[in-house]
Amino acid sequence: MSGEPQSRGCGLGIPTGGEALAEIRAARAALTRLIEPGDATAALLVGALGPVEGLQVATGKRSVDPAIEGHVRSLLLGSGAKAWEGFSAAVERWKGRVPDLAPHRDLETIARFGGRFVIPEDPEWPDGFEDLGEQAPHGLWVRGEERLPAQRSAVAVVGSRNATNYGLSVCGELAKGLVDRGVTVVSGGAYGIDAQAHRAALVTDGTVLPTVAVMAGGLDRYYPSGNEELLREVARRGLLVSELPPGGAPTRHRFLRRNRLIAALAAVTVVVEAQWRSGARSTAHHAADIGRTVAAVPGSVYSASSAGCHRLLRDGVAVCVTDVQEVYELLAPVGDGLAAEREGRTAIHDGLAVEDLLLLDALPVRKGAGIDSLTAVAGLSTAQVRAGLGRLQLMGLCQQTAGGWRRTDQSPGKR
Amino acid sequence: MSGEPQSRGCGLGIPTGGEALAEIRAARAALTRLIEPGDATAALLVGALGPVEGLQVATGKRSVDPAIEGHVRSLLLGSGAKAWEGFSAAVERWKGRVPDLAPHRDLETIARFGGRFVIPEDPEWPDGFEDLGEQAPHGLWVRGEERLPAQRSAVAVVGSRNATNYGLSVCGELAKGLVDRGVTVVSGGAYGIDAQAHRAALVTDGTVLPTVAVMAGGLDRYYPSGNEELLREVARRGLLVSELPPGGAPTRHRFLRRNRLIAALAAVTVVVEAQWRSGARSTAHHAADIGRTVAAVPGSVYSASSAGCHRLLRDGVAVCVTDVQEVYELLAPVGDGLAAEREGRTAIHDGLAVEDLLLLDALPVRKGAGIDSLTAVAGLSTAQVRAGLGRLQLMGLCQQTAGGWRRTDQSPGKR
Repeated sequence: MSGEPQSRGCGLGIPTGGEALAEIRAARAALTRLIEPGDATAALLVGALGPVEGLQVATGKRSVDPAIEGHVRSLLLGSGAKAWEGFSAAVERWKGRVPDLAPHRDLETIARFGGRFVIPEDPEWPDGFEDLGEQAPHGLWVRGEERLPAQRSAVAVVGSRNATNYGLSVCGELAKGLVDRGVTVVSGGAYGIDAQAHRAALVTDGTVLPTVAVMAGGLDRYYPSGNEELLREVARRGLLVSELPPGGAPTRHRFLRRNRLIAALAAVTVVVEAQWRSGARSTAHHAADIGRTVAAVPGSVYSASSAGCHRLLRDGVAVCVTDVQEVYELLAPVGDGLAAEREGRTAIHDGLAVEDLLLLDALPVRKGAGIDSLTAVAGLSTAQVRAGLGRLQLMGLCQQTAGGWRRTDQSPGKR
Repeated sequence: MSGEPQSRGCGLGIPTGGEALAEIRAARAALTRLIEPGDATAALLVGALGPVEGLQVATGKRSVDPAIEGHVRSLLLGSGAKAWEGFSAAVERWKGRVPDLAPHRDLETIARFGGRFVIPEDPEWPDGFEDLGEQAPHGLWVRGEERLPAQRSAVAVVGSRNATNYGLSVCGELAKGLVDRGVTVVSGGAYGIDAQAHRAALVTDGTVLPTVAVMAGGLDRYYPSGNEELLREVARRGLLVSELPPGGAPTRHRFLRRNRLIAALAAVTVVVEAQWRSGARSTAHHAADIGRTVAAVPGSVYSASSAGCHRLLRDGVAVCVTDVQEVYELLAPVGDGLAAEREGRTAIHDGLAVEDLLLLDALPVRKGAGIDSLTAVAGLSTAQVRAGLGRLQLMGLCQQTAGGWRRTDQSPGKR
């Protein structure tokens, strides 16, 4: 079983023989080196033929049955998709990398780093990746001991590299608060908000998987290097994840494609700070595109680092969130904490009927007033005034004195 | 014509004789003293019988035809409205104030203050009040020389009395910027955001009506007294407006009802700062209830003065706005200014096709690379690489050197 990493859970419960699964794993490992992330043509090929035969076609070792290509093409065009480049054109595109393929070496490398290569055939495969359709990864390179989190228990916390102290503070509270509530944080590996999210998640000491960092390059190196210590700790207590094999360079294109994985791993994506144009906004749009909830933290209108958040709010892409409880409620709509508590902070006159508000306004603060006077001032009937005085008295808002009715000290002042 | 104020435009073009209009005006003036703002039963009575006969019934000088009452009742219940109290019960409720009625004196008083009483029969009557239905005022007491603004050219700028420097700053920019764009500001008369909105609107010196202050009490006095100088200036260069006759006290109930007039006068209501519970939020909800656009300014999540704004955003009641141009675009959806300009701030690599981004990423910064190398690194076919190099070269993003192809200095760095 050369190259099969020593990982937990791989292939458990899947009705495929161990050797077949190893072959599939090796084929998918090769696909992650051959194909750029998010290449839809490759996904269609693997979908039609499976990863093993799909790889053979992609590497030019075998040609695709024209009937299958015709079928894929008609399915694709029938769904209103864009023009179909055809498998042979794609193979031409891929062939430059064929000499570099060495899936068994890559699987050995990741195992040496204490990692593994998780594939859709594994029970650990994240449930959220289905929503990516043809943009789903061929497999995930993973470092860390825990299993990948379920979508419903993960929140992506993302934002600018150029974060302000305000953004770092909010980010820290959100990330720590989420892990305290049993939620896993998902983010990238960049400076600023990403790093702060991991840092705050790792401050906690619960039993939950605290954090997942999704990288744009291979997991054999830490990028950016200034985050090496932090990312090492993420690998130790959380998870490092990438769809690129060891050695894969983190290019701009791969950073942009990486954002879809962050979005797909989490049920909710929160943008803490983002400039008018920013990668965090791309993650937010990926999340919205696959039907996930997007949230944004507001900030000063004078802060360029909040402009992207405000843009997401203004465009209706994101929901406004101001604290961890509001984020948590997006994950578990039946909130029980802060929001309910806030509703409980009622003003003393809340819930009074209009007539009783009118009466309360009419009641003098110092010397008392008679029913007739109250009737005229409040514009209510005698019966309404009498009934209302009874209700207000029961609530401790008015009292009868020798000189007539007046407010009590508990009663709110006039505006 | 006792009590008929010397105002511009009253009754012009309305096919009612001057005397009949004067009688209607006096009846409506009396209704504003008899009836609390927003009393739906009175509105139904006036709707069914007109203001003159309606007032006679409301003051008990005449009884309502049971057929009319039955008709109103069936209309009301047929529309699914709440239980119908009946006109005679309402008359009982109103009768305490009948001795105080003196509409001609009130009309003389407002005229003495250089004001007038505008009624729905006047061409000046604001077009936006129809949306209030049974909550529409019987008339508006007005001080100031200008006509009331059209809904489409007015924006309500509202917020907390306890405003922060941040809120005051944003408020000032919005109000001044709106008037500079020919839009009239509408607000209350309170300290904080309301006062700042008027102050900033009055800084301008255009020909447009700068600002309208909607008061909760009679216009014979300035309330709160600390704003007297400001409100005097609003009366001089803008308009003071109230549905209460001279002498009417600004009670809590009237403040809350007053908010619906602010909302109805403007096409858009902007909440600049508001605490979790606040009168500004009530104005926002009135605006939303009658189908107007509501906007809220975001702020720090640590500021209690922004909590109400964030709540409006979170609940989907308000749109997020961060500057005057965004507010103006809500009024006139075809914006031409700032937003377009922002879109123009494109990064140098924006608009590149995916293959060209891949190729750009693959291009070395220093020593050049050959086509074969680029093909392998970018995962593109030879033809794609050749075509892409041509496009990037035309854009000044790459150049051919003795050692092969490399990026130029204009080309963006790798992320």
